[in-house]
Amino acid sequence: MPPHSTSVPAVVLLSGGLDSTTTLAVAQRDGFAVHALTFRYGQRHAHEVEAARRIAAAAGVVRHEVVEVDLRAFGGSALTADVPVPKDRNLIASDDIPVTYVPARNTIFLSFALAYAEVSGAADIFIGVNHQDSSGYPDCRPAFIAAFEQLANLATREAVEGRVAIRIRAPLLDLTKREIIALGRSLGVDYALTTSCYDPDRHGAACGHCDACQLRLRGFAEAGLTDPVAYQHAGLTPP
Amino acid sequence: MPPHSTSVPAVVLLSGGLDSTTTLAVAQRDGFAVHALTFRYGQRHAHEVEAARRIAAAAGVVRHEVVEVDLRAFGGSALTADVPVPKDRNLIASDDIPVTYVPARNTIFLSFALAYAEVSGAADIFIGVNHQDSSGYPDCRPAFIAAFEQLANLATREAVEGRVAIRIRAPLLDLTKREIIALGRSLGVDYALTTSCYDPDRHGAACGHCDACQLRLRGFAEAGLTDPVAYQHAGLTPP
Repeated sequence: MPPHSTSVPAVVLLSGGLDSTTTLAVAQRDGFAVHALTFRYGQRHAHEVEAARRIAAAAGVVRHEVVEVDLRAFGGSALTADVPVPKDRNLIASDDIPVTYVPARNTIFLSFALAYAEVSGAADIFIGVNHQDSSGYPDCRPAFIAAFEQLANLATREAVEGRVAIRIRAPLLDLTKREIIALGRSLGVDYALTTSCYDPDRHGAACGHCDACQLRLRGFAEAGLTDPVAYQHAGLTPP
Repeated sequence: MPPHSTSVPAVVLLSGGLDSTTTLAVAQRDGFAVHALTFRYGQRHAHEVEAARRIAAAAGVVRHEVVEVDLRAFGGSALTADVPVPKDRNLIASDDIPVTYVPARNTIFLSFALAYAEVSGAADIFIGVNHQDSSGYPDCRPAFIAAFEQLANLATREAVEGRVAIRIRAPLLDLTKREIIALGRSLGVDYALTTSCYDPDRHGAACGHCDACQLRLRGFAEAGLTDPVAYQHAGLTPP
């Protein structure tokens, strides 16, 4: 991913994971000058913020903001509270929304992205949500993305005055993990820089058993590739 | 405003100003157990957070959370950046969105309120936006509120699973400042606890000349009342 010289700005939500990193590469492929936005929100897996910094630097983004928002005040999730991260769930059989769901997370993240877009002169906001392998989160669904776009066009000065039309772009929405990995590889994404695990050890090595690890391992296996990141135990087989 | 004994929770966005304090009183009148939510967002007028604490305590709310969100990273407003607050504007002649507009502020605040509602078991979110005297902010308009409600019902676990219908309640939307003050007085609101000024001195005394002061002074004058808060200079005449 070489540094980009275009002058059309776009905001990209960048978590440091596989999906958002692929989304960033799509935004650059489409000719946008990327203003990346990452959150430190009290997540257990704060090492993903460091991954986001490495990815943004490697991609040569125009600007990268890391914003602190404390979602711990609201409790309610294994990603931010003192609740065990579930391991080895049967993802195919489960329609439940898991305890790793963070209340209103994508609504909050997109709201900040909208503020960032407004001050950056961007009309386009990229988010790496993924309906197929979304682990059942409501705010990863197509209807949610469409509703946010509608809201955004009523929320900002530029949109209300008719000078821009905000677009929420979710290029991975209908892709499988396998397809996302294939897309990213075709765009030169180095997945060794990314991190997905909800419960890594202190060196950042992935647990291999949380939902995020399971989805990731399955995606690499289906793509016929080996995941380049470190796991806590060798010889994991995807679910 | 006596402490409330009902068990139906509602989230109330409480800035410490006149409008949100009146909205809190309406929520209590309507039988809700109030979970108040205040933001420290890098605003110049951070004394409003202290006002919010006093108001929440006086009203006997169930819970009051003050959440830190740093909007300064996005610049772009006289309320958070090093830009002079405009004084003595002609409010009636101006259709412009003023420099005191904070990018996507109400979108961000409502998103946090949605998270708070979700963990509090609340279906109702109260916000004191006011279309008549909104100073031209896009995110104070009725269409914005309706769009956020639609989004909210696609964003949360409880709503998507059909167990609750989120309602964004904006009881002041069509009221004038005079009507808001009359409503609040009828509900026992002590406006001496509130603060509205965008540019108070270090003792919290209001400047009397920013948009917020002008709207407030005009409202009290039209209601035939004297504003009980302290101003930096005596003998102000409303615009």
